[in-house]
Amino acid sequence: MPAGDMSIILLPDSDDPAEPLPCDLGNPKLGILGSGDYAQSLAARLVACGYGVLVGSRNPKHTATKRFPEGVQLLTQQEAMVGTEKVVFVAVHPEYYDTLVGLRDVLAGKVLVDVSNASRLNSGEPSNAERLAKLFPESRVVKGFNVVSAWALQTGAHDGNSKVLICGDCPEARRTVILLARHMGFHPVDKGGLASSRDIEDVPLQFFPSWRCPLLVTLLLFLFFYGYNSLRGILLPYLCRGQNNFYQLPLEMVNQTLPAVALVVLALVYLPGLCAAALQLGRGTKYSPFPGWLERWMWRRKQLGLLSFLCAGLHAVYSVGLTQRKAAQYRLLDAAFRQVQTGLESSWVENQVWRSDLYLSSGILGLGVLTLLAITSLPSVGNTLTWREFTFVQSGLGYAAMTFSIMHALFFGWDHSFSTLAYTYYMPPTYLLALILPCTVLVGRLVLALPCLAVRLANIRRGWESPCHHPLSGFKIDTQTEL
Amino acid sequence: MPAGDMSIILLPDSDDPAEPLPCDLGNPKLGILGSGDYAQSLAARLVACGYGVLVGSRNPKHTATKRFPEGVQLLTQQEAMVGTEKVVFVAVHPEYYDTLVGLRDVLAGKVLVDVSNASRLNSGEPSNAERLAKLFPESRVVKGFNVVSAWALQTGAHDGNSKVLICGDCPEARRTVILLARHMGFHPVDKGGLASSRDIEDVPLQFFPSWRCPLLVTLLLFLFFYGYNSLRGILLPYLCRGQNNFYQLPLEMVNQTLPAVALVVLALVYLPGLCAAALQLGRGTKYSPFPGWLERWMWRRKQLGLLSFLCAGLHAVYSVGLTQRKAAQYRLLDAAFRQVQTGLESSWVENQVWRSDLYLSSGILGLGVLTLLAITSLPSVGNTLTWREFTFVQSGLGYAAMTFSIMHALFFGWDHSFSTLAYTYYMPPTYLLALILPCTVLVGRLVLALPCLAVRLANIRRGWESPCHHPLSGFKIDTQTEL
Amino acid sequence: MPAGDMSIILLPDSDDPAEPLPCDLGNPKLGILGSGDYAQSLAARLVACGYGVLVGSRNPKHTATKRFPEGVQLLTQQEAMVGTEKVVFVAVHPEYYDTLVGLRDVLAGKVLVDVSNASRLNSGEPSNAERLAKLFPESRVVKGFNVVSAWALQTGAHDGNSKVLICGDCPEARRTVILLARHMGFHPVDKGGLASSRDIEDVPLQFFPSWRCPLLVTLLLFLFFYGYNSLRGILLPYLCRGQNNFYQLPLEMVNQTLPAVALVVLALVYLPGLCAAALQLGRGTKYSPFPGWLERWMWRRKQLGLLSFLCAGLHAVYSVGLTQRKAAQYRLLDAAFRQVQTGLESSWVENQVWRSDLYLSSGILGLGVLTLLAITSLPSVGNTLTWREFTFVQSGLGYAAMTFSIMHALFFGWDHSFSTLAYTYYMPPTYLLALILPCTVLVGRLVLALPCLAVRLANIRRGWESPCHHPLSGFKIDTQTEL
Repeated sequence: MPAGDMSIILLPDSDDPAEPLPCDLGNPKLGILGSGDYAQSLAARLVACGYGVLVGSRNPKHTATKRFPEGVQLLTQQEAMVGTEKVVFVAVHPEYYDTLVGLRDVLAGKVLVDVSNASRLNSGEPSNAERLAKLFPESRVVKGFNVVSAWALQTGAHDGNSKVLICGDCPEARRTVILLARHMGFHPVDKGGLASSRDIEDVPLQFFPSWRCPLLVTLLLFLFFYGYNSLRGILLPYLCRGQNNFYQLPLEMVNQTLPAVALVVLALVYLPGLCAAALQLGRGTKYSPFPGWLERWMWRRKQLGLLSFLCAGLHAVYSVGLTQRKAAQYRLLDAAFRQVQTGLESSWVENQVWRSDLYLSSGILGLGVLTLLAITSLPSVGNTLTWREFTFVQSGLGYAAMTFSIMHALFFGWDHSFSTLAYTYYMPPTYLLALILPCTVLVGRLVLALPCLAVRLANIRRGWESPCHHPLSGFKIDTQTEL
Repeated sequence: MPAGDMSIILLPDSDDPAEPLPCDLGNPKLGILGSGDYAQSLAARLVACGYGVLVGSRNPKHTATKRFPEGVQLLTQQEAMVGTEKVVFVAVHPEYYDTLVGLRDVLAGKVLVDVSNASRLNSGEPSNAERLAKLFPESRVVKGFNVVSAWALQTGAHDGNSKVLICGDCPEARRTVILLARHMGFHPVDKGGLASSRDIEDVPLQFFPSWRCPLLVTLLLFLFFYGYNSLRGILLPYLCRGQNNFYQLPLEMVNQTLPAVALVVLALVYLPGLCAAALQLGRGTKYSPFPGWLERWMWRRKQLGLLSFLCAGLHAVYSVGLTQRKAAQYRLLDAAFRQVQTGLESSWVENQVWRSDLYLSSGILGLGVLTLLAITSLPSVGNTLTWREFTFVQSGLGYAAMTFSIMHALFFGWDHSFSTLAYTYYMPPTYLLALILPCTVLVGRLVLALPCLAVRLANIRRGWESPCHHPLSGFKIDTQTEL
Repeated sequence: MPAGDMSIILLPDSDDPAEPLPCDLGNPKLGILGSGDYAQSLAARLVACGYGVLVGSRNPKHTATKRFPEGVQLLTQQEAMVGTEKVVFVAVHPEYYDTLVGLRDVLAGKVLVDVSNASRLNSGEPSNAERLAKLFPESRVVKGFNVVSAWALQTGAHDGNSKVLICGDCPEARRTVILLARHMGFHPVDKGGLASSRDIEDVPLQFFPSWRCPLLVTLLLFLFFYGYNSLRGILLPYLCRGQNNFYQLPLEMVNQTLPAVALVVLALVYLPGLCAAALQLGRGTKYSPFPGWLERWMWRRKQLGLLSFLCAGLHAVYSVGLTQRKAAQYRLLDAAFRQVQTGLESSWVENQVWRSDLYLSSGILGLGVLTLLAITSLPSVGNTLTWREFTFVQSGLGYAAMTFSIMHALFFGWDHSFSTLAYTYYMPPTYLLALILPCTVLVGRLVLALPCLAVRLANIRRGWESPCHHPLSGFKIDTQTEL
């Protein structure tokens, strides 16, 4: 009764109570086409999980040299496929799928697992799995395991990513592979029909897709501010007064640029939220989709936040570095010298003391709050938060951090921004430029906090729709509020 | 054979080997009552997992405007429930449960999944799920999915918390929902009978319950020490000698307060452990429960430790900030000026050099060890530790950190604490106050390390009970020692 | 129909569609031998998951005093085992296994789960599970749950490590326990036959096995460099010129030693990779195994990297500390004094300013990159990376960090290394010694980047073998490239 065996073989989670299985039956036969590394690692893992494995190679004799574990039978492709009961892993390079058509009859009715990756990202062509499905109309093709490296297979996904994306047009075949994956110690994720195999094949080729835009924006901002600072603080003074400040390029200029970038990027984290709220208020409903750019922007807030934190952190380290440098020491010595020459008893300037203390404390506090935010953005930490806690941390603490940062900049500016000296060459100091966007965002947030708007927004988000927008909103009562 | 279908429909992990299922059957029917956001996200997810979904709305025509994915049938509640085979998600606002009683007959024998949340925390009333169960005695109510946000449903729990708490009085219905949850890519957690539905419904409303007490304690300590410092260093000098130190409020006073708080809170982390040990030694057994306050205290040690680390870290940053401020620069200049006036060749004071170097190094080392502790308290890191490693890190490194911190404070105090000058206005310096509790804890720990006590304690923890406490302790041999 | 019950009892994931189960059947009977803490926690958890539990104690009356949850029957061992349907947890101390032989007949055919730990690490003797299997040839012994602490059992593995290693010779029994474990909310990992029970029993006793070597290496390097520095900077000056620099021991010497250690250890992270590449190039294939020492070394790269980061971080903190100390202040004051005496207008030395700024920036950047590396080595972060991203971070960023660190050291050295003054007592300055290995590694990496070698290496890693090594490499086409 081969069917009877299969139930044990392929469905470890199932059991037929009628006839408890004797142990010697617990060694079913899975097939693997191909004998490369991946085939080897796969075979090793399957054997470790108590499956029997038949490896079909084009020339078993020569592949024999490779290291296959005990319990693996190395046969010709034909032999192996005949012996296989239900599931066959196709570990052959996609270019050579056509060489397998000879096995069409033997593979009829069996589940073919395509473990291959895309050769290049977002190619318009059909995915490997789809090509395989075309070649074997009689078989049921399931995409999976391609995100798992041979290394993860060997070590059993203790460290590496244990998620396995699976898709296929036949739900039953899909479920079989899902079970197999779970029994192998991975976390299968059902991705529906074979249509999504393209995306799944692209995954291993992806290269920080979610970081590209945020990084670009941050970089551009950095270049702009760095250029602005160098022009204002080094180039123009040199051209006009032949003053040589070039030594400021590596440290001081970078340290003037970083906080500006951090502030603006932080503002960019909270701007899209305001836009979304404004849209919902204007439309009087939350059921009409946001424009694409806004959607994408909102999906990138986490990355932007982390980049802002990175800049802020570097700014802190650089500021500390500034006091370590020789230049600082020389300046101090010369100041002491001048003080002695002028016979000045005390150099104390109360209002400067207050200024420095205030911008230091607000800066430290702002950075502290940002650090908390960064920590909660760690997956393992964020996952322990309830929705309500997560919202508080992200929005509440986020705005706190922005407020502190703005205060930091304002205290740093003190009253200088009102003196004409601050506008050398008619260029405003950097911190003033950097403050524009954050202040706008903060004001916008305060406006949204006005009762009239806040209440209306809360209702909209609870599913209510403005009558003008929807005649029968009275019936909207049966809506489940989001957590 | 509807029953036959169900096996596929509801139990993806099961399979009937007798008749391998043709693929077109793999599209079973689940029901959803309600058509709000949550219903939409839920439907989308279920469809993605290869289920057919029937949505029952009060007025299908008008809800049609909303975005339901392909493969979802939008019907009247009655129609939808009739078509549903076994599992029905109740995505209706709890207030409107009574409006569903008309469906009682159609829902008889089916599994109702209550996905609602509590409207407010720890309300004495019965949970929504219990109310639902009362309304539908014929159906089997299971609580679940309420901790999952609509967002997590859409994205498939890749980032968000993927844990799904499930409870219900009928084990079989519970298991069905557990399977469903797992197949949807979540990690179901079985919480037993429907009685625990109250707690489950409260989860999304919880707001850092485990942090409340520790935060309060830390805050109070901060206020006390800050007040004490300001009184001693600013207010009294001002009143008595008209000395104006108010500029010290934002930075110096905070930086005098933080280390004191960090030290005391760190001591509070290890105090309960000592109490517990003392109790066990006194009672001669570990089988009698601890008093409630001690239990709660021990559960909060992790939070206290992290808060102590936070204060210590801020203290480090503030101390660095102190040298950045103008005040420090002015003082240095004036010192240089005085030195020149007095014609002092060298200002070197060997013993002051040693003092500062020693308290700096012990401070840095203490903070370093605390950082290691904080890192291992990250879930994803702590989970990779064995029980033995975890214990070493938490207890061993913890006491090391405390010892370093105490040394830091002692070296900082140096011999000043013996001069009467340190007791201006008869108030001892802060670090002395802060040292009392930590030193007590350290001494207590050393006492417990005495062989006589240590051995006895080890035995008690291995399950041994003192004869006086239990006449038949001889039979205690068959106890499994904890890992 | 006991068999019918079992299907429900032991296979929660299975279901017999023919006869939907009435709810009152959902309370199957599992057995536990022993009544210690572990037995209690286990019983509590099983009851919470809807199982019935029979606890077999040697003297039920006296164990009754302990706290067992509702739904647990406390019986004699004989009674309990008779009542148990299929699975029995053996929570008895291994020393007392022999006392159970009387139950041999009752336990025949049942699944015995051995939850015990090894008494000491890598003892040559057979594992407890193997001994149990010998004692009960009729039963099917499965090893498992020993890595789970009683605490994790009670709290349901929300925080603690939820991985459960399981092994046993009978696949079906193994699968039963795997299901049970998953239903209890743990993540079972199938470890194959009972032979691996030894390793599984050792797990809870392990004490940072992967950290031992790296820590030792780092420590030795630290001692060497610290000794070298103290000899060169303190001891010899004292002996030769009676110069007293001992105050430099706690801070300055440590801070000279840390960066050297960090640099060398960082080089040790990337050295094995180069060796491996060289081996593969020489052999012309990747299919011959690496020597054991190289394998082990490559497995320790992560730990070495983190230790290097630790040293680099401490170095940064110490360097900041240096400016906080009294010594620095005294030196500055004396410098000011001398400057006044000599009437020197400006102490500015352009080239020193550049030097300090350059080595500070390169140091900060190097540390920044190392921090990113350390963050991605957090399990929860690394798991979100694709293989390609992970490789880039580890190798690309790693070499960037090393380059920055080398620049940091070179800028620090500036032109001093060419002056004879730097070689007091014929001992080269530390940073020169520390630079040897990193530079070698960097050069080696650049050599491997030469097209001729790079291309050949890439082919070898894609499965190609040099003809000299393998006559039929033409057939190697059907190899799956690693992700």
